[in-house]
Amino acid sequence: MADSPIILGVFAKAVGTRLSKEDDRVAVEEPLELRLGRTPVAVTMRTPGDDRELAAGFLLTEGIIRQLSDIEKMTGPVRSLRNVISVKLRRGLRFRRDRLMRHFYATSSCGLCGKTTLESIHVRTQPVSGDFKVSLKLLYSLPKHLREAQDTFEETGGLHAAALFDATGTLLLLREDVGRHNAVDKAVGAALMRNQLPLDRHILLVSGRASFEIMQKALVARIPVVAAVSAPSSLAVALARKFKMTLIGFLRNGRCNIYAGEQRVLG
Amino acid sequence: MADSPIILGVFAKAVGTRLSKEDDRVAVEEPLELRLGRTPVAVTMRTPGDDRELAAGFLLTEGIIRQLSDIEKMTGPVRSLRNVISVKLRRGLRFRRDRLMRHFYATSSCGLCGKTTLESIHVRTQPVSGDFKVSLKLLYSLPKHLREAQDTFEETGGLHAAALFDATGTLLLLREDVGRHNAVDKAVGAALMRNQLPLDRHILLVSGRASFEIMQKALVARIPVVAAVSAPSSLAVALARKFKMTLIGFLRNGRCNIYAGEQRVLG
Repeated sequence: MADSPIILGVFAKAVGTRLSKEDDRVAVEEPLELRLGRTPVAVTMRTPGDDRELAAGFLLTEGIIRQLSDIEKMTGPVRSLRNVISVKLRRGLRFRRDRLMRHFYATSSCGLCGKTTLESIHVRTQPVSGDFKVSLKLLYSLPKHLREAQDTFEETGGLHAAALFDATGTLLLLREDVGRHNAVDKAVGAALMRNQLPLDRHILLVSGRASFEIMQKALVARIPVVAAVSAPSSLAVALARKFKMTLIGFLRNGRCNIYAGEQRVLG
Repeated sequence: MADSPIILGVFAKAVGTRLSKEDDRVAVEEPLELRLGRTPVAVTMRTPGDDRELAAGFLLTEGIIRQLSDIEKMTGPVRSLRNVISVKLRRGLRFRRDRLMRHFYATSSCGLCGKTTLESIHVRTQPVSGDFKVSLKLLYSLPKHLREAQDTFEETGGLHAAALFDATGTLLLLREDVGRHNAVDKAVGAALMRNQLPLDRHILLVSGRASFEIMQKALVARIPVVAAVSAPSSLAVALARKFKMTLIGFLRNGRCNIYAGEQRVLG
């Protein structure tokens, strides 16, 4: 994969019912593993580039170091481990988990590149089935339902929404949260608690961007079509293609981009 | 705090150089701790409401359960522990860390409400100092610099930006990432590696929303003024007020809201 923060691909674009193929760009998303010595302490999904600055900033803002001189040595990323940074702390400065300001840690076995991340899912999960289809006209109708449902209690501009639609484009449920992954978990969890899983004839619409994490959650719920009002990331596109999901981006004003799973979209 | 996903407050609004006080709403952000039995396994910053659905959805989409019947019992949130959900898994189903699809875990000692979260920061961190001031005119000039710098390589609509400005409104550096916290870590890390810390006469501008996490990172770097093009969360506002930071939201088109630290803003 490229070192650039964006990658180029050929994606389908729909304007009304007119479909075309065009070069377009998506933001790159890949995991970065931060190690203290040989111990992995954090994995974050990030856009490659400025990785040493990211590592230094993370160590500072998470309370692990207080100044640059607390870092004795920083190595990586190197070609063979392009998503790993190793930091040796100043002698006498020990990493104390209780000093971490956010309370998240990483396991040691996380994938070291997007491809590995996808592989690690693949051992557990089958691609979604392919017989569900959806028309562009139906897709174009969804954002309006989202907005109307969201308007009833969203007055802050600060909440992400995730909505589940059935095959006829009827809104089944909508959930909102400051965290986009939480909005999806709430929507999927609501369907689970209503015994509506698998959601293999449903559409998930998210109000913002489509990240790897959103796609992974949709995949587990067996949702074949994910649409986002805004942009997808590179790893979201890669995951969708690998697991034969349909991924729609920039779904607004009677147009959209189809990044994966075009065969499910009827003109 | 309220159970509603939004809370009401009185915030300063600036339209041009005209300042007024108005009722306004912000999205609520608070940590939710998920326990399996008595063991905390995850903490997420979420908007209260539908917490049981969130817990069920999280367990499913992170690969811990496969169906609703894998949950034997779910308790919480209760009044005294309003940010804790406890789940008892079906007998025979053991929580295996290696089945978690995302590779993040939580410590046991995380704050159980936003207030506790703020207190836990407070023991380590002093409020930012108060002598730095900024004019509305200067603030209004910032988004244009951000857009211009971002346009040079952002063509995807998928990247968050974080920019550091000095007291004269000069853009020092801008970093972009699919993750908004990573963009901030990159910007702070870059300043750290250039020996520019503390950033106590600087302004951080973020292209999207201002969450608790963004404010916490800015606080560690001693940034007195944080401005967001979009909305702040409730916990971002609370953190800013507690640590005497200035928090500006909806900074665009010659207007903004001032959620905290008004004393630093000159008309």
